[in-house]
Amino acid sequence: MKIIHTIKSMFAAAKKAKAKGRTIGLVPTMGALHEGHLSLIRRARRENDLVVVSIFVNPAQFGPCEDFKKYPRNLKLDAELCKKEAVDIIFNPDAKEIYPEGYRTYVTVEGLSDCLCGKSRPAHFKGVATIVTKLFNIVNPDAAYFGQKDAQQAIIIKKLVSDLNLPVKIKTLPIVREKDGLAMSSRNVHLNEKEKKDAVILFESLKYARDLIKDGITDPGRVIGEIRRLVNKKDKAKIDYVSVVGPHDLIPVDKIKGNCLIALAVWFGRTRLIDNMIIKSRNS
Amino acid sequence: MKIIHTIKSMFAAAKKAKAKGRTIGLVPTMGALHEGHLSLIRRARRENDLVVVSIFVNPAQFGPCEDFKKYPRNLKLDAELCKKEAVDIIFNPDAKEIYPEGYRTYVTVEGLSDCLCGKSRPAHFKGVATIVTKLFNIVNPDAAYFGQKDAQQAIIIKKLVSDLNLPVKIKTLPIVREKDGLAMSSRNVHLNEKEKKDAVILFESLKYARDLIKDGITDPGRVIGEIRRLVNKKDKAKIDYVSVVGPHDLIPVDKIKGNCLIALAVWFGRTRLIDNMIIKSRNS
Repeated sequence: MKIIHTIKSMFAAAKKAKAKGRTIGLVPTMGALHEGHLSLIRRARRENDLVVVSIFVNPAQFGPCEDFKKYPRNLKLDAELCKKEAVDIIFNPDAKEIYPEGYRTYVTVEGLSDCLCGKSRPAHFKGVATIVTKLFNIVNPDAAYFGQKDAQQAIIIKKLVSDLNLPVKIKTLPIVREKDGLAMSSRNVHLNEKEKKDAVILFESLKYARDLIKDGITDPGRVIGEIRRLVNKKDKAKIDYVSVVGPHDLIPVDKIKGNCLIALAVWFGRTRLIDNMIIKSRNS
Repeated sequence: MKIIHTIKSMFAAAKKAKAKGRTIGLVPTMGALHEGHLSLIRRARRENDLVVVSIFVNPAQFGPCEDFKKYPRNLKLDAELCKKEAVDIIFNPDAKEIYPEGYRTYVTVEGLSDCLCGKSRPAHFKGVATIVTKLFNIVNPDAAYFGQKDAQQAIIIKKLVSDLNLPVKIKTLPIVREKDGLAMSSRNVHLNEKEKKDAVILFESLKYARDLIKDGITDPGRVIGEIRRLVNKKDKAKIDYVSVVGPHDLIPVDKIKGNCLIALAVWFGRTRLIDNMIIKSRNS
């Protein structure tokens, strides 16, 4: 396994592989790898000749008051995990390599980037769309792997790939959860024991919402109200949003029918967690 | 010579050529080809195995009150010209092919897109940056050819290629002029005889500015004033802007030294023309 730090070397390695007709699978990450990432890496390993894991804590997707500095970093441990999964290349550039002085170019996916997480994180998805476009140009992957945990991100990336005619297949894999149901996240390390226990309510409330919809509830306001009620029982929980939206356009639904995406973001102390569930309703 | 209308076919043709190790030169145009375009095509022909000329009047780079509808179109004549120059492929998609319903993704080069032409054409360079990114992804060229006539466009495209790590060489070729000095432009067909004669003042005033600078004038205000005075002598001319800027950052210079770009845009009747000159000053 190679660890590559420069764009030039990464580009050359990808070019060499492609020239030999090898397929490339890319798993873009910010490091602090957990079982969620590993599920993506394993799938990439099965489906491609060359597996590249990018590890880059992308400053462009953090707001000025957000947790860029305290975002967990552990390249040594990440590298061990990648080696175990037979990753070929870790691409680990520094911020100056990706955004040199005078950097000016950004990619935006309009209409999908301002709602849900984009509302409280205004430049977040512009940063995500930009880094992903750059990584695709540098690594030239046949397929790239993302987690359903970041549902809005996955939808935005699929849209940008289709809109900009990028020759990459986007594969979104299911959320990986702890035994108690908490969605795996690099940010979970910031939770204290009480917060970690309380945060289980996210998945619990989503499951409860799914049951309500199975029972025939079609009013999104009712479903959102029930989730809010459950989450608010945890005294340290502070809801950012709970939304029921279309699973492709992210527009809030008036009535629950067909597939919908229930997405939520909740602060536990100083840590903001997200979770979501795609629910297939039998209502029509 | 093939004329290709769909992204899928264009992508496949490019992929096939690249698989055989052939280099691709792309000349992006909006059609209504003139000697300026032909100079780009000839250079592309000399330097590449496969030459693709894209002909697409890009709605995204026209403002709502601009001349999208009356922009000259003549595919038959363009195809004859391309054939004479031994072009391999004309890529001529329609607007729905490039911007299907629900299209949402745009590329912006911040800081370079709001000045000069971007001031009176606010979304123009966002449209340019987006279509160029898409064309590069579809055609996968080794090199792409642009005219110095659109100086700001060339600078923006070079910046976006560098920022987004696109593996394309950008080549900017000199302005091609009529015998009387008028810069070639597809929009020149809209000029009546009087306007066409008057428009020669653009190049005349740029040459006069060059002489002033050669004579040691370092005050950009003085140079701009002289250009404005000359242009305003033509009673139908209406100046949009005259600027003396850095040739890479497009920032107005306080004092003329080293290289500078003098750029201007002037309306003659209902037609807006642009011209520019890079001037090497001996002042330091």
